[in-house]
Amino acid sequence: MTPHATLARFRDYLVGPSRFMTLLSCFELGLIDALRGGRALSAAQLGTVAGARPDAVEQLLLLMVKEGFIAHDEQAGTYRLAGLAGVSDEDLDAVLADLAMIKAVTLRQLYYLTESVRTGTPAGLKELYGVDGDLYAALADLPELREPWAKLMNTVTAHVDPWFFATIDIPAGSQVLDLAGNTGLGAIHTWRMKQSPGLHVTNFDLPEKETESLANFRAHGVEDHCSFIGGDVFEEVPGGHDVILIKHFLPMFDKSDVLRILKAVHDALPAGGTVHALVPVFPENLADTENYTVDFYPSFFIGCAMGQGGPQKLSTWAEWFTACGFTVTQAVTHDPAELPAHALTVEAVLSAVKNP
Amino acid sequence: MTPHATLARFRDYLVGPSRFMTLLSCFELGLIDALRGGRALSAAQLGTVAGARPDAVEQLLLLMVKEGFIAHDEQAGTYRLAGLAGVSDEDLDAVLADLAMIKAVTLRQLYYLTESVRTGTPAGLKELYGVDGDLYAALADLPELREPWAKLMNTVTAHVDPWFFATIDIPAGSQVLDLAGNTGLGAIHTWRMKQSPGLHVTNFDLPEKETESLANFRAHGVEDHCSFIGGDVFEEVPGGHDVILIKHFLPMFDKSDVLRILKAVHDALPAGGTVHALVPVFPENLADTENYTVDFYPSFFIGCAMGQGGPQKLSTWAEWFTACGFTVTQAVTHDPAELPAHALTVEAVLSAVKNP
Repeated sequence: MTPHATLARFRDYLVGPSRFMTLLSCFELGLIDALRGGRALSAAQLGTVAGARPDAVEQLLLLMVKEGFIAHDEQAGTYRLAGLAGVSDEDLDAVLADLAMIKAVTLRQLYYLTESVRTGTPAGLKELYGVDGDLYAALADLPELREPWAKLMNTVTAHVDPWFFATIDIPAGSQVLDLAGNTGLGAIHTWRMKQSPGLHVTNFDLPEKETESLANFRAHGVEDHCSFIGGDVFEEVPGGHDVILIKHFLPMFDKSDVLRILKAVHDALPAGGTVHALVPVFPENLADTENYTVDFYPSFFIGCAMGQGGPQKLSTWAEWFTACGFTVTQAVTHDPAELPAHALTVEAVLSAVKNP
Repeated sequence: MTPHATLARFRDYLVGPSRFMTLLSCFELGLIDALRGGRALSAAQLGTVAGARPDAVEQLLLLMVKEGFIAHDEQAGTYRLAGLAGVSDEDLDAVLADLAMIKAVTLRQLYYLTESVRTGTPAGLKELYGVDGDLYAALADLPELREPWAKLMNTVTAHVDPWFFATIDIPAGSQVLDLAGNTGLGAIHTWRMKQSPGLHVTNFDLPEKETESLANFRAHGVEDHCSFIGGDVFEEVPGGHDVILIKHFLPMFDKSDVLRILKAVHDALPAGGTVHALVPVFPENLADTENYTVDFYPSFFIGCAMGQGGPQKLSTWAEWFTACGFTVTQAVTHDPAELPAHALTVEAVLSAVKNP
């Protein structure tokens, strides 16, 4: 890479925040929705919709026109959708969920990234909200973070869970533990997608999740098949299960803590017991520019969520399982062709059996 | 543009803030400087430099390696500069000035872009600092904004002013007014680069700029050739000058205020008097992806600086001068090939003569 090419690429980095918020603001102002009605509209008409001066509408739409998302008829002075015209409502909702989460949970917090790296804590949460813990603790008290976060996680889960459960085998009658299963959605999905006579799924998470988890089991009519155990994975993982699921949890931690978790899982399983993990991965060849995992997640986990953690290569996750007394039986990366084109995360399923 | 291509392009928007801060944090942590020493260093060694855990250093550097800015030797476990190796100290300083200004002056402020559009004020300055005015008023009291801002403006001025003054003609003995000349640097440059017997340059700005402006004139030894008049361009522009310069000022305003300013300039000049403006421009063909003006400036002026304003096409600026009683005599866009490869702004010089 030449110095000139390096400097030219820096331009894309310099305009990263401004591009992000210009696009999101066009949604927030209702400009995109107004144009989705199909009529060509002037800046003055769009200004009325947005409660903004036409000059400001024109300014924000310049970038949308440059990108080809929106078209501008200079003679008529009107705008209409271009690239955005064919995007489905469902995809647009999903993009908007991404944009809203990134704004709420990362945009201002990233200002404190360097401090987060040095302290090993998400410093922005402390600065902005006075929160001492991590993002997941903060969500409970902060609806302005929780709501966009939950909306995003629901759209991601809707795509990922069917693939995850189609990829793993859970034998009939298994006793399953969903590690750090939050408020029980993973346990409910496990029952729904893998149900069999005798199958039982236990959600294991901090005791404060019990009430909402049990309420969710009742609301979904799975209370006979799903239960809750309160505890802390860094203290002890409860025994009595032959399958343990670890979804959306390992990338929250640095290597030393991942190994502690895997050793605790190992201790909790019988010989021959199985663990299935869902983990974000970056490609074995980092130069694969189609994988955006490292463009987003390192600064997300370190700066905005945990003060540590991040994605790994699938081969690294596999090494860590092997180092903790497991034999890896499958390691499958989600085919990017099956993901929405705007998806930032490439996930993998890693299944492993406890060595005898 | 297909829906798929549109969604895929959105990914670059979604990772805009995280890419920006990941790069800047690598500088802030001292990782780039350490590698500029030339030795290959491990994550542990870099962690010692940065005061950070090696895990976090590895995470942040993933993106730098993906981009080819830095190289990672997986066998040796060490990092060295790649694309960044050939970038000169001067260019790197300039990039760092850009990054630091964008972080301080825009990153958190952009969170409030939609509110800024609706209110016509830079809402983020109010939210973050309790400031009621615009950025330029806020700079006086806020060193955390002023210092990165001033550093950036100095690097930009060092590139742009020689070109601006080489492009315009100021006849010997002219009486020049530098409109909104801040603390006098433009007046000093005018004298230095265009000096002639009888040339006099007056800096016209708000009265509170007088003390610093006069001190600057003395410090640069130009106090016999440069003077100061306090006033407000929206009240009256002082007469008695045959050349008026307007640098870095017009893009701060919406069209209606630009026209007010140009009419006041027209009133202040004699027939045949000249105005030379330096203005940011986006290309006549907005689809020119090599021009980054619209990627940055609309949200900067509206969201972070003024609550209004923005760049225009050179032909639009020219139309506005013509509408205010001027004949445009030259309209020259700075050749991008003469700008540093990371430059975001394309400037133009527009010269015009007051119609008889």
